[in-house]
Amino acid sequence: MYANLVYKRRSVNPGPPSYTLWMEIKPFRKLLRRVYRPGTAPGTLPTPTGPPRPTRLRLTRFDAEALLEVDLLTPEGIDQCNEGRLTWLDVEGQDIATIEAVGRHIGVHPLALEDVVNLGQRPKVDDYDECLFIVLDRVRLDAEALSVETEQISIVLQDDLLVTFCESGNEIFEPVRVRLRSGKGRIRTSGTDYVAYALIDSVVDHYFPVLDTIDDQIAQLEDGIDESPSSADRVALHRIRRNLILLRRSVWPLREMVARLQHSESELIQESTTVFLRDVADHLALIADMIEAYREMVSGLMELHLSAISNRMNEVMKVLTIIATIFIPLSFIAGVYGMNFDTQASRFNMPELSWTWGYPAALGLMALVAVGLLAYFKKRRWI
Amino acid sequence: MYANLVYKRRSVNPGPPSYTLWMEIKPFRKLLRRVYRPGTAPGTLPTPTGPPRPTRLRLTRFDAEALLEVDLLTPEGIDQCNEGRLTWLDVEGQDIATIEAVGRHIGVHPLALEDVVNLGQRPKVDDYDECLFIVLDRVRLDAEALSVETEQISIVLQDDLLVTFCESGNEIFEPVRVRLRSGKGRIRTSGTDYVAYALIDSVVDHYFPVLDTIDDQIAQLEDGIDESPSSADRVALHRIRRNLILLRRSVWPLREMVARLQHSESELIQESTTVFLRDVADHLALIADMIEAYREMVSGLMELHLSAISNRMNEVMKVLTIIATIFIPLSFIAGVYGMNFDTQASRFNMPELSWTWGYPAALGLMALVAVGLLAYFKKRRWI
Amino acid sequence: MYANLVYKRRSVNPGPPSYTLWMEIKPFRKLLRRVYRPGTAPGTLPTPTGPPRPTRLRLTRFDAEALLEVDLLTPEGIDQCNEGRLTWLDVEGQDIATIEAVGRHIGVHPLALEDVVNLGQRPKVDDYDECLFIVLDRVRLDAEALSVETEQISIVLQDDLLVTFCESGNEIFEPVRVRLRSGKGRIRTSGTDYVAYALIDSVVDHYFPVLDTIDDQIAQLEDGIDESPSSADRVALHRIRRNLILLRRSVWPLREMVARLQHSESELIQESTTVFLRDVADHLALIADMIEAYREMVSGLMELHLSAISNRMNEVMKVLTIIATIFIPLSFIAGVYGMNFDTQASRFNMPELSWTWGYPAALGLMALVAVGLLAYFKKRRWI
Amino acid sequence: MYANLVYKRRSVNPGPPSYTLWMEIKPFRKLLRRVYRPGTAPGTLPTPTGPPRPTRLRLTRFDAEALLEVDLLTPEGIDQCNEGRLTWLDVEGQDIATIEAVGRHIGVHPLALEDVVNLGQRPKVDDYDECLFIVLDRVRLDAEALSVETEQISIVLQDDLLVTFCESGNEIFEPVRVRLRSGKGRIRTSGTDYVAYALIDSVVDHYFPVLDTIDDQIAQLEDGIDESPSSADRVALHRIRRNLILLRRSVWPLREMVARLQHSESELIQESTTVFLRDVADHLALIADMIEAYREMVSGLMELHLSAISNRMNEVMKVLTIIATIFIPLSFIAGVYGMNFDTQASRFNMPELSWTWGYPAALGLMALVAVGLLAYFKKRRWI
Amino acid sequence: MYANLVYKRRSVNPGPPSYTLWMEIKPFRKLLRRVYRPGTAPGTLPTPTGPPRPTRLRLTRFDAEALLEVDLLTPEGIDQCNEGRLTWLDVEGQDIATIEAVGRHIGVHPLALEDVVNLGQRPKVDDYDECLFIVLDRVRLDAEALSVETEQISIVLQDDLLVTFCESGNEIFEPVRVRLRSGKGRIRTSGTDYVAYALIDSVVDHYFPVLDTIDDQIAQLEDGIDESPSSADRVALHRIRRNLILLRRSVWPLREMVARLQHSESELIQESTTVFLRDVADHLALIADMIEAYREMVSGLMELHLSAISNRMNEVMKVLTIIATIFIPLSFIAGVYGMNFDTQASRFNMPELSWTWGYPAALGLMALVAVGLLAYFKKRRWI
Repeated sequence: MYANLVYKRRSVNPGPPSYTLWMEIKPFRKLLRRVYRPGTAPGTLPTPTGPPRPTRLRLTRFDAEALLEVDLLTPEGIDQCNEGRLTWLDVEGQDIATIEAVGRHIGVHPLALEDVVNLGQRPKVDDYDECLFIVLDRVRLDAEALSVETEQISIVLQDDLLVTFCESGNEIFEPVRVRLRSGKGRIRTSGTDYVAYALIDSVVDHYFPVLDTIDDQIAQLEDGIDESPSSADRVALHRIRRNLILLRRSVWPLREMVARLQHSESELIQESTTVFLRDVADHLALIADMIEAYREMVSGLMELHLSAISNRMNEVMKVLTIIATIFIPLSFIAGVYGMNFDTQASRFNMPELSWTWGYPAALGLMALVAVGLLAYFKKRRWI
Repeated sequence: MYANLVYKRRSVNPGPPSYTLWMEIKPFRKLLRRVYRPGTAPGTLPTPTGPPRPTRLRLTRFDAEALLEVDLLTPEGIDQCNEGRLTWLDVEGQDIATIEAVGRHIGVHPLALEDVVNLGQRPKVDDYDECLFIVLDRVRLDAEALSVETEQISIVLQDDLLVTFCESGNEIFEPVRVRLRSGKGRIRTSGTDYVAYALIDSVVDHYFPVLDTIDDQIAQLEDGIDESPSSADRVALHRIRRNLILLRRSVWPLREMVARLQHSESELIQESTTVFLRDVADHLALIADMIEAYREMVSGLMELHLSAISNRMNEVMKVLTIIATIFIPLSFIAGVYGMNFDTQASRFNMPELSWTWGYPAALGLMALVAVGLLAYFKKRRWI
Repeated sequence: MYANLVYKRRSVNPGPPSYTLWMEIKPFRKLLRRVYRPGTAPGTLPTPTGPPRPTRLRLTRFDAEALLEVDLLTPEGIDQCNEGRLTWLDVEGQDIATIEAVGRHIGVHPLALEDVVNLGQRPKVDDYDECLFIVLDRVRLDAEALSVETEQISIVLQDDLLVTFCESGNEIFEPVRVRLRSGKGRIRTSGTDYVAYALIDSVVDHYFPVLDTIDDQIAQLEDGIDESPSSADRVALHRIRRNLILLRRSVWPLREMVARLQHSESELIQESTTVFLRDVADHLALIADMIEAYREMVSGLMELHLSAISNRMNEVMKVLTIIATIFIPLSFIAGVYGMNFDTQASRFNMPELSWTWGYPAALGLMALVAVGLLAYFKKRRWI
Repeated sequence: MYANLVYKRRSVNPGPPSYTLWMEIKPFRKLLRRVYRPGTAPGTLPTPTGPPRPTRLRLTRFDAEALLEVDLLTPEGIDQCNEGRLTWLDVEGQDIATIEAVGRHIGVHPLALEDVVNLGQRPKVDDYDECLFIVLDRVRLDAEALSVETEQISIVLQDDLLVTFCESGNEIFEPVRVRLRSGKGRIRTSGTDYVAYALIDSVVDHYFPVLDTIDDQIAQLEDGIDESPSSADRVALHRIRRNLILLRRSVWPLREMVARLQHSESELIQESTTVFLRDVADHLALIADMIEAYREMVSGLMELHLSAISNRMNEVMKVLTIIATIFIPLSFIAGVYGMNFDTQASRFNMPELSWTWGYPAALGLMALVAVGLLAYFKKRRWI
Repeated sequence: MYANLVYKRRSVNPGPPSYTLWMEIKPFRKLLRRVYRPGTAPGTLPTPTGPPRPTRLRLTRFDAEALLEVDLLTPEGIDQCNEGRLTWLDVEGQDIATIEAVGRHIGVHPLALEDVVNLGQRPKVDDYDECLFIVLDRVRLDAEALSVETEQISIVLQDDLLVTFCESGNEIFEPVRVRLRSGKGRIRTSGTDYVAYALIDSVVDHYFPVLDTIDDQIAQLEDGIDESPSSADRVALHRIRRNLILLRRSVWPLREMVARLQHSESELIQESTTVFLRDVADHLALIADMIEAYREMVSGLMELHLSAISNRMNEVMKVLTIIATIFIPLSFIAGVYGMNFDTQASRFNMPELSWTWGYPAALGLMALVAVGLLAYFKKRRWI
């Protein structure tokens, strides 16, 4: 397929590590992650099948003074820790039995729990009075920077308890952990809603490297697309467009979600956190602006690509026309004097063949025709 | 026509049963299902013509303790059952006389009854104080997964009575029946509005398998479209686009309908049901997002297809150009030395023909021209 | 031009009468019906020119008990009838003097009267306290089902009086007359607003046959467009698109108008009529949905048509390439052995010509080249 | 360039005077009329440069009884007239000093005055408590009906005083003057807001002839575009599209402006004038509808044009293919029998040349090939 | 690449200095200016790296009577000046340590300070009770008028203090300084909000020269695009489209920002300043209108360009067709009479060769064929 197309980071925008993209033979993945089985009762979790998948329960208890980080075996372990006023339980992995146990222990609405388990939800915030249930997507480019991959993150926010569910072990919460450990800033003193904000902020900021790579790819395509339009450009544009569709599908509901959180009347969101959510909303507005700008760029580049291909063909055509139209009449003349009419039989039969200057005259005629046609093409500006 | 194009389920996304799509010669169906006869009085039902069509009246009476399922012969049978507090009457089939009798018996507004009979309505909810009248569409792909087919479902929701009208015997209510029979969950204790929600939820969840198939078809097209663009791709894209238009026409008003139900001020919708309707609304938002994403994908693929065809032509063109433009001058040279000028008649007449190295020189000239042209094409990067 | 293109009703959708469409040489009509003469005082009617145009004043007086239908000579005749409580005056035709007389007699605001006379208004409802002034468009396909034609209908609704102005004798009010005469339903007992509703409903329902024909035309084009794209398809698509633009221009303001009527605070619209207006609004929503769906279909078909044409060219091209590129080298070989180098003059001059197996060898070389090229084309999948 | 393309008014729509459009070599004008010099203090008028430009101050004083029309030399002249209660001062021309004097005399806010002088404003209404400041555009097609030209008109509406500023002597106010002189209708009795309405109405109605011409041009293009697509069509479509962009840029803010005027809470707009402004709003809605419809038409025509060109090429291509592919094999056969293999040297060397029926057989073979290819093309429906 | 394409200012629109644009080999820059490092605590400034960058602190203190302009070394210098009631501190340059010191000294919210340092923010206004924080973009075309460049300007507005942060020494504030020095108008008497308005106004007015240049470029392309479509046109269109995307991304949030400022409930914006902000909003509306109009123009031109290229190819094609299809049959005839059938061997073998009028007849036949084909092409209007 479109193997071995090297995408080098452009030197114009020097960035941390230079990377290389390979467009290899790789089938496209489906857009739809989840198919609801029609007719199941609401709040029903799928029956776990196969061996239990590895799931890690990372408990963090903290307040201004203390911080405890342990891995739990069962959710009941939450209550056995006395240190710290605030609790953050991070459930990494998708073992349904464990998730159900966690949900039962902390008292999550069945509909919310169903959404935790059924991955591929739309980002949203649901207000169940006693808790806020937040769903959002983290995005990542795969190893070759070809496809956007999304992973669902669910957050349950209660008064002193914050539970997060990730599809897999998730490095994007790491910076928040580091800040919690360092104890600097307000993160250990402001409540669980601020920690939730910090997590959302981290997820949102992870959109930027993805946009940056796409920006790089677009800039690279932009430079060469008119001069040497190739099939690979077209496929690359399609991949970028596809990724933008995926990003857009995550970002739009995310904006809605953050706006709803910002103007939420729930008591779980403190007034002081709102100003920080506004900051997240600003970032999302910037991301949304960029996605729209890239979509337009990609449309424009596709048009440019099509136009460049047409133009290319035009030039190939012109050369063919010129060479063919010059030599076809010349060949005709040569053909005429290659006819075998019997000059003996009649004085009208090709007397030119026996003229003294016959051959030079024929060559001259050919030269004349060639020059005439060239002049005509010159005049019509085809050369 | 476009016969025998096999669409195999892609192995990348392993799904329950492997299926095969055949694009056969099959005319497109009309989009508009119903033409109103202008000028009929509102609430007028069409006069039944032809033999009565088979219609089944499935009565279900239930409450927390009891459940009765019987088939009625006439709608009057409703009142003869004493078991159960809540009643669900499911009218399967389109016999106008029966529908009219049902409508008269339970007291449905004539305008609503007209909409039950005149299939092809737009999904909506009408509030007639004493009852809510809900119209929605179920969708299904036909056997070859080529066309989306819609069937109208009408729901009349009264205090203790729920009447549903389906075009035909409808398997999509089956899961709800199963849940009613099992008696688990809140379905038998929550009122008719919850049952109505369960039915709507089941109808909405049946959109997902349709989207899943479309997703498959798109992914399949995506993989091959640039390398080997075929006429069948184009028709398949058109079919998908058509299906998306049909789905969209059903989903948009459906979202509006569910939103209106969710924020309805009618006393027929209990507060506790609203949270479940929010869940349906989330699913519909996801469906709508997917449809938009697919529409963009299809547009992009169509563009890619057009571009790939152009590109194809370009390459064919190039080969023609190269072969033709190389041999045309060579043929001309051969033509010149095929002329019959009488070398005897004059020393200017083609003396080359009698040169010792004449023939090798001519062949050499030809080789030179050929190599020169090849070098020129190489330089212009056409080879 | 595009003469004699037969459009037959498709047998898939059996409809009342089979009809045939001929795409004949027929210039397109203008979109703009009316040019306002700038600077005339508001409410000024144009001076009647030419002989008076035939105008019919059809008076209907009715209540639950009685119904009187007479043709009036002058509008003053309204007051001379005593039968019936409610009055409907239908003015068919465009004689300005008569319309002015009617307007003066019943007391219509000059601006409204100006809009009655100046055809080509946008559908709207104006509330002049003492009366409601409604403008709407009826649509019709012309005889060959090629162009949508609109006709303006103006309605003045007062307390007990309803006056309608039509451009010409109008069969679309006939069903309402029939219902009035039959006296069934609520039409004779509900007030003039209900009659106005009935008229609007009849006008709206006349959009459906037009959509149905367009649906037929699209389905017919859809079937053949990819296989045999013709110039006539293109023009037919353009005509359909044009008709959809015209329909849309009528339907959008019509929806707005009906919505405004539905939520009007005017006392002239009774509460009980509102539910019927909701029914009209539903029909209009369906019509608007269909128009949008058709517009998308037409766009998609145009794209398909363009793509099919490109593809067509591609195939023609390929055949040319194959035949030309095979024979051009062969002809060159034949040309070489047609050169007249003097084999006598030198042993280097075309010794092949005298070889025993010369001719078969030459033919063999040709066959080899031909087979080689065919194999190359096969490999590149051009055959 | 595209000289001498005659656009004749179509006979289908008989209009007042027959006119003729010439598409001549004419550069396109810029879209942006005004470049703000950044950093100037608000309300600063540009320093007048060059000789004073001719500016006419036309004063009209009137009430129900009297009307006085004089030309003033200086704005102070306003106060010297005693006749009439209401005053309309029309400033025709762009002499900055005069405009400044007028502004100072009647007390206009510096920002408003700046907008009067800096032409190219966006239509708007500004409410400065003591006065309303209205900006609108008049449009006109230039002499050859090729480009839309806009001229700014500013209106200052005070209690008893109306001041209008036009770029040049303006015939579009003439009908209002005539109505003022005749004294018919309510124009002399209703206040300055009604006169302002009359002026706005006149400006708006001048959009219709422009639309009418564009409609004519579109209809004319529509008739010929598929049959004989020419370069001139393309340029004409571009000109029309350009004009529609210009019109749209004027009409959209104009609608907004009139709507704001209509719902203004300013005491300067009487209740009775509002109904007339609604009439203007209706006209603008119609204009906006038409512009959108034309834009779609032009898009559709451009697509049709592109498609027609493709199709054209297709047909040219087909003829080339057919002629070339028939004669290329024939020429090859002739070439073979033109080879000079020495029939004496070997019995394998072209024995056909000496056969009795050799020549007829060769001709027959050629005929066979030709007929075969024709049959093949016929079968593939290329002929 | 696309070197040395001269863009000369068009003489039709005479402007101040004639300038020349060179389209040189110049890679495209990225759209995204800033990548957020995910997970940093909010309000964290990046650690300054490298040597301190030159930053200038320009202090202006003023009131109606006095004006003092000094350059400060440290922000503490603000308090050492006694002259003037109002203070404007302009920080030019991006030294993080200095910015942090300024922020600390005047008390700016950490989130705001973070936005000052992290360039590439979206224009916005944030209300932190005690101060308003405004971000906006200034735009500029680079030296060759090829790319739009944006620079972030941040404004902190407190009661008597205005602090502005620019990326670099900024000439766009110069006119405001000049007005401050001159002391004319209300600028020294109206408060810091009016000065902020003056700065915003200056930034907004700097969009106009950029639009003007783009307008010039479009007009220039428009004139030549149909006649001589070149690859450079395409790239120029792409550059313009790109610039419009960039402008749009700045202007839309800017409009929102000014609207929010205009309707702000903050006490920092005086009532009297609102009317001036309305003026800025008008300018932005005009700018936004122009950008939309240009975008449509560019789309139209791209379509025109594509169409012109197609058309071009069409014409080249036609010439090829005509010359080739005329000479191919002629060459065939010549080929036939070049065959070497042995006229001696049989009387059927090419007896024409020995006819008296054989050669003239052959030439005549050729002429006949040529004339016939020309007539055919004439008839089909290909010549």
